[in-house]
Amino acid sequence: MENFVTNPVPIADRPRVAIVGAGVVGLSWTGLFLANGLSVTICDPRPDVKIWVLSGLEGIRRTLHELGYPFEKIKGRVFFEEKLHNAVAAADVIQESIPEVLEAKQMLYEKLERFCQRSSLILSSSGSFSASLITKKMKCADNVIVGHPFDCPHLLPLVELAPGARTSRSTVERAISFYRKMGRQPVLVDREVEGLVANRLYRALVLEGIHLVQSGVISVDRLDQIVSASLGPCWAAAGPFKALALSLGLNNIENCFDNLRLDGDAVTKVRRQSVSYYSYVPMEDLQKEWIDRQIAILKMSDHSQAFRSL
Amino acid sequence: MENFVTNPVPIADRPRVAIVGAGVVGLSWTGLFLANGLSVTICDPRPDVKIWVLSGLEGIRRTLHELGYPFEKIKGRVFFEEKLHNAVAAADVIQESIPEVLEAKQMLYEKLERFCQRSSLILSSSGSFSASLITKKMKCADNVIVGHPFDCPHLLPLVELAPGARTSRSTVERAISFYRKMGRQPVLVDREVEGLVANRLYRALVLEGIHLVQSGVISVDRLDQIVSASLGPCWAAAGPFKALALSLGLNNIENCFDNLRLDGDAVTKVRRQSVSYYSYVPMEDLQKEWIDRQIAILKMSDHSQAFRSL
Repeated sequence: MENFVTNPVPIADRPRVAIVGAGVVGLSWTGLFLANGLSVTICDPRPDVKIWVLSGLEGIRRTLHELGYPFEKIKGRVFFEEKLHNAVAAADVIQESIPEVLEAKQMLYEKLERFCQRSSLILSSSGSFSASLITKKMKCADNVIVGHPFDCPHLLPLVELAPGARTSRSTVERAISFYRKMGRQPVLVDREVEGLVANRLYRALVLEGIHLVQSGVISVDRLDQIVSASLGPCWAAAGPFKALALSLGLNNIENCFDNLRLDGDAVTKVRRQSVSYYSYVPMEDLQKEWIDRQIAILKMSDHSQAFRSL
Repeated sequence: MENFVTNPVPIADRPRVAIVGAGVVGLSWTGLFLANGLSVTICDPRPDVKIWVLSGLEGIRRTLHELGYPFEKIKGRVFFEEKLHNAVAAADVIQESIPEVLEAKQMLYEKLERFCQRSSLILSSSGSFSASLITKKMKCADNVIVGHPFDCPHLLPLVELAPGARTSRSTVERAISFYRKMGRQPVLVDREVEGLVANRLYRALVLEGIHLVQSGVISVDRLDQIVSASLGPCWAAAGPFKALALSLGLNNIENCFDNLRLDGDAVTKVRRQSVSYYSYVPMEDLQKEWIDRQIAILKMSDHSQAFRSL
């Protein structure tokens, strides 16, 4: 599936949003949606939900403000509903972030189908279970899609979008449109996969890191220093494949895979895609942009002190 | 070995530096050292070495300037010597960056031992071969250590320091001191390992990335977008273990390893080290610092456009 946006079925200018499950992630979504001027109805069974949400919002208000989302007046825009039916009945968009327990999710989605409007867009924050799986007990699941953030969505812009087997194309388009309006960066995956992409990449790197710590090569804190003085700024400025293309040149990407013992098909696919995605502007322009971003990032991070101490 | 600096044998205030091997990496070191006010003698057999170096320096001058290292007057501070003996005889510090061919390295180090002063500090940029291996033909190798940068050392501050079996403690301390004076961030590894740490972590993530591309989950460009909208800024602001500790809490780090099927020893070691390194200041202070850095990085990167378009 391509990362398309073609005449999406419009999302209401100010959609009414319901947050189902207000843990750390649900709270973060709440902050983001409020900062975008929306009204939010929260449904969570914890007895102290109001205190948790309102005090938690104080904590993330500063972050959102710094990011250019000042939200001063939330009075009259945050509602709490104990009953799921009341929370979602009038919602245009539902962002579900309940704990990652499959049975609980499946039961919830069965109820959502009964309680929601047919036109509601249902977004699941799940990183553990696919839309196909959590919607299993629904008769119709065309309006459900996974919209999985990385850590806190009010801070990091990524939302991985993973349609289920029954998700409609229109739902994909509406989800992309909605998250973009919220200032997020939705990225569509082509196929449901356990853990989705960012988590799997995190895990692969951490596994190697644990191996290096366990085998006495490096300590936890020095490994952290290594990453934030190299891979972190490098990859914040360009993803890992783009960084390879920009530092080695498009025709030499394969060289870096030499000692990885990969099958030729995989390498060819990566090279072909890299060439097709990263040769649309002159390489020098992409390189300059990449270097400029790294400079800016380095100045903003810990390492600025190293420079200043000279 | 600990990341110690105790009364290092002092490096001359303005050490005379020889660059042996002036490819992309040697050129980058040359720029960095010049920008720090040092004089540099370059030894490389390529016939166009002068043109390559002088035009290359133009290209990296802008980057160094932006990073706070203006270097206006390099006249009288860059020298070229065809003969290795002439290049290194008077050098206090030698940064070797010749191609990664073991036999060539071993022959070179045998010569360096004959031509250098005994007090010279010999730093190898090698990421492929250990100091123990490249110094095999030297009688005495106490003054040699691997100082391996990540990509271009004038841009990214990381230098991985890997002492060989015969490297003296004083050499480790002098190398740390020298690179710090150059505004770099030296990080000592406890044990020589193929590829060193940053490259191995890069490879682990890229391998999983290639797998995801090959199996049709995601395309190269969208994987890149995912990383630079999540892991990149996250890890530029704090390494992967610190990020886990800050987002999950020190006592919950293990939870994230639940589905990694790790042996208990490894997890215990990582948790114990995380607690010991990251509980020296209140967690809230570390978290605030981490969030502030991510905010600054996000503002500097591509994603600023998302925020501004609101």
